[in-house]
Amino acid sequence: MKERPFGFEIDIADAAIPARDRCMQRRLSALRGQYQDTAGFDHMVEQGDPLIYEVHEVLRPESSGELLSGLSIVHPGRVGDEYFMTKGHYHSVRGTAEIYYCLKGHGLLLMENEDGDWTAEEFRPGRAVYVTPNYAHRSVNLSLNEDLVTFFVYPGHAGHDYATIESNGFRKRVVHRDGTFELIDNPAWSAPAQVSA
Amino acid sequence: MKERPFGFEIDIADAAIPARDRCMQRRLSALRGQYQDTAGFDHMVEQGDPLIYEVHEVLRPESSGELLSGLSIVHPGRVGDEYFMTKGHYHSVRGTAEIYYCLKGHGLLLMENEDGDWTAEEFRPGRAVYVTPNYAHRSVNLSLNEDLVTFFVYPGHAGHDYATIESNGFRKRVVHRDGTFELIDNPAWSAPAQVSA
Repeated sequence: MKERPFGFEIDIADAAIPARDRCMQRRLSALRGQYQDTAGFDHMVEQGDPLIYEVHEVLRPESSGELLSGLSIVHPGRVGDEYFMTKGHYHSVRGTAEIYYCLKGHGLLLMENEDGDWTAEEFRPGRAVYVTPNYAHRSVNLSLNEDLVTFFVYPGHAGHDYATIESNGFRKRVVHRDGTFELIDNPAWSAPAQVSA
Repeated sequence: MKERPFGFEIDIADAAIPARDRCMQRRLSALRGQYQDTAGFDHMVEQGDPLIYEVHEVLRPESSGELLSGLSIVHPGRVGDEYFMTKGHYHSVRGTAEIYYCLKGHGLLLMENEDGDWTAEEFRPGRAVYVTPNYAHRSVNLSLNEDLVTFFVYPGHAGHDYATIESNGFRKRVVHRDGTFELIDNPAWSAPAQVSA
């Protein structure tokens, strides 16, 4: 990893950081349990397990003074009436924030915390979202023909907790209804332990 | 300050974060001692003390899990053959990084550390610069007719040390020569104490 300052291009048209250190790709099968239409989900996985999103990462040491950044690219599509989206996660160190800056497309950042609060912010080119500490976050692509491309930055020591969302889901689902999007309750959601207690 | 996640627009055409919490403005007089042409500097200050740069800040708690972000706008112009630029600073907590993402214009990020290393990275729209920990940084607008606009993010606990650069200067000056820019040694630069010792 570089010890000295460095520059890197973000290619918006091609949705890429050409000099990325790592490219993480997630196919639909990685989101098992997150979509309501399980029959549709199984069918799509069998028919080729489509690529849902990619993350181009700029690697740095995972310490508090460093910043982790990269490009998130969520492809367009739906499983039943639910849009393609990221797995979503908390930071392992809950008290860490994140900033997203939308470069292309139209989407939502769906967020919730373990006290039961949830909110969503719209992504449009030129719009940034500040994820305050303690909020899980998931990117949802609301377009049916264009990638959702965001540049993100978070503290180096944040870490990733995917397990909480994998087991509990998000409170809200984002569905396509009457030509637009709608947020509806997720019947499969379970409250985190400290809330239901 | 907001406890819940929030979105904000970055208006590139107008070089503004309309929902900023604070707008810091620096006039030329704030850069006293940083330009070689002191007679030209004094004259410009007397003739109206032009606005050199502005910072639109999104305020957050100054703690390690938070992120401080905003827009830096360096106006075009020169003092003698040296371009308009920011004061430049180290972070008080030296081991903290910063990311800049150029939205508009053409410039340089001039950087140096206290071990005597220096480097510069070019700003063009779509280009990001990662300032590794321990490097002082100064934005220089290389255009003579367009603002240099960058979005920056750094760890909440970083702090600002302007005093080191105010007293020592940067090793390099960025001057306009034969229609382009050139980096030349700064004769007024003094090595930090630990380097000269």
